[in-house]
Amino acid sequence: MKLCMIGIRGHNGYILDDLEELRHVKVVGLSTGTEEDDIGKLENWCNEHGHTPELFADYQQMLDKIKPDIVSVCGPLELHAEMCIEAFGRGINVFCEKPVAITLEDFERLKVAYDEAKVHFAAMMGLRYHPAFYTAWRTVRDGAVGVVRLINTRKSYKLGQRQPYYLCRETYGGTIPWVGSHAIDWIHWFSGESFCAVYATHTVMHNRDHEELEMSALCHFTLTNDVFASSSIDYLRPTNAPTHSDDRIRVAGTDGVIEVRKGEVYLINGETDGEEQLPAECDRQIFRDFVGHVEGKTTSLIGPKETLAVTEACLLARKSADEGRVVSF
Amino acid sequence: MKLCMIGIRGHNGYILDDLEELRHVKVVGLSTGTEEDDIGKLENWCNEHGHTPELFADYQQMLDKIKPDIVSVCGPLELHAEMCIEAFGRGINVFCEKPVAITLEDFERLKVAYDEAKVHFAAMMGLRYHPAFYTAWRTVRDGAVGVVRLINTRKSYKLGQRQPYYLCRETYGGTIPWVGSHAIDWIHWFSGESFCAVYATHTVMHNRDHEELEMSALCHFTLTNDVFASSSIDYLRPTNAPTHSDDRIRVAGTDGVIEVRKGEVYLINGETDGEEQLPAECDRQIFRDFVGHVEGKTTSLIGPKETLAVTEACLLARKSADEGRVVSF
Repeated sequence: MKLCMIGIRGHNGYILDDLEELRHVKVVGLSTGTEEDDIGKLENWCNEHGHTPELFADYQQMLDKIKPDIVSVCGPLELHAEMCIEAFGRGINVFCEKPVAITLEDFERLKVAYDEAKVHFAAMMGLRYHPAFYTAWRTVRDGAVGVVRLINTRKSYKLGQRQPYYLCRETYGGTIPWVGSHAIDWIHWFSGESFCAVYATHTVMHNRDHEELEMSALCHFTLTNDVFASSSIDYLRPTNAPTHSDDRIRVAGTDGVIEVRKGEVYLINGETDGEEQLPAECDRQIFRDFVGHVEGKTTSLIGPKETLAVTEACLLARKSADEGRVVSF
Repeated sequence: MKLCMIGIRGHNGYILDDLEELRHVKVVGLSTGTEEDDIGKLENWCNEHGHTPELFADYQQMLDKIKPDIVSVCGPLELHAEMCIEAFGRGINVFCEKPVAITLEDFERLKVAYDEAKVHFAAMMGLRYHPAFYTAWRTVRDGAVGVVRLINTRKSYKLGQRQPYYLCRETYGGTIPWVGSHAIDWIHWFSGESFCAVYATHTVMHNRDHEELEMSALCHFTLTNDVFASSSIDYLRPTNAPTHSDDRIRVAGTDGVIEVRKGEVYLINGETDGEEQLPAECDRQIFRDFVGHVEGKTTSLIGPKETLAVTEACLLARKSADEGRVVSF
């Protein structure tokens, strides 16, 4: 299988990690998708691991010449949608860094373009494959908490010193879509419900000279069947915290409550002795799953429908926060 | 000091626990405030502990005849405001079970009546005196997390089988004011900010035949200085959970993050080694503090201003949930 890779701003690591096992997938083309970035490190990795990709300044020329089976998109965030659309138009399967669009206009164009394509398409929601989140999701899906009623999620990052493209809405998209998309994805994934309405707030206050970057945000989603869900999103994690990110979810259902905290899974229901820790395991990998899906061997944990639904939810939450009102789906 | 006690629906335990030390405070009058309840147990406790209260069918007659220094109010929830107003009119200090009003109309009347009285008034927000919450609050007040930016709170109760007055909005007031008031109080107390707007949702779905009782709710508050806060509120805690209630708060600030979970306090800031547990301690008691405040010896952790602000926040959150829109303060 032929893989082209666009860009270096994102989780190319998901792909590289899995390529070791996917011996039949070869990186045959590389392009940064922007003159600002340098492909050097990625090219070196490829050469050291038995891939001999051709380099392209123009990613569209790459797609036309190589006609890959799969293209990965980690270009500038504001070009994600355009890059996906270009690939869809050529019948190429797309594995794209999230968010796959950072404006509602791009999102609408992307949706139309996807509907006309017959390809596989997924955002890089790598946390679905995190042992704790995957285990919690399977446990919920197996009925351990009964009917899901209430979900609380948290994404808290260290700010550090961000690259210039984070400082501007046009090239960053905002903290709700960028940091929050994982949390919003969990809400959709764990609940199995559809989004109905969102109310959100965000602020640039105390952002340590990061211009337009929102430092904290809060989202309140209402889903079908009166399922409610919160996402608390911030860059307030202290520098000396043990991990970059504090990722949490709590799912309360009619028969139990499950939580992921600090990479561990805890369940209380009628069959546990108080709160019990579950072993966190995931035998799947996100890019291997994507390739397996393209080959018809498996169903990947995230596909086009979820990718589009969660992207829309992120952008409508940001719209709610920008406009100070409840936004309906 | 003369203390009259009205009603048995609430935390009279806060008072009885502290009376052991407050030898100069005597229970001199008791009234249920409703024909539905039985004062027997409370009367027995008094007699066994050196108090010889007079019993009254009519609490107003009790206030007129005894003219107590303090009255505690644990009558039917829908009568709290009226009972407080009657006491205010007689210049009596009031220690009232929360919520102190369950309709906005009663709240407005209560506020006017309070403004004309020169008494001490506090809701029974006993969790302010919980060792973990008190320690966390002091730590925040001492600057350990810098400027407060984002607060997430949780109140999760076991449902059990509730008494009939919980089943009806008119006598219960709703889950946001009743269960949620503690969480909403923490938001006000920890942030030191004023409420600006609230968006909330609640639902009676899956309430196990508890008629109008809302089983789950979610509130999203915006406070001054763009501080955001969530309250997740539910009766979904499984029967075999180790405690009746799961009470949590996370306060993220510009310099650190503090959390209370399972009665323990955890802090991360520039001076901790990753996340550190703090010893949870509180040397104050709620009713002792109330009495000390009345005597001019101390400033109680909760007074009239906070009681009224939090009650209004609870009732406006419920209004938001009832009407499906953002409500401004």
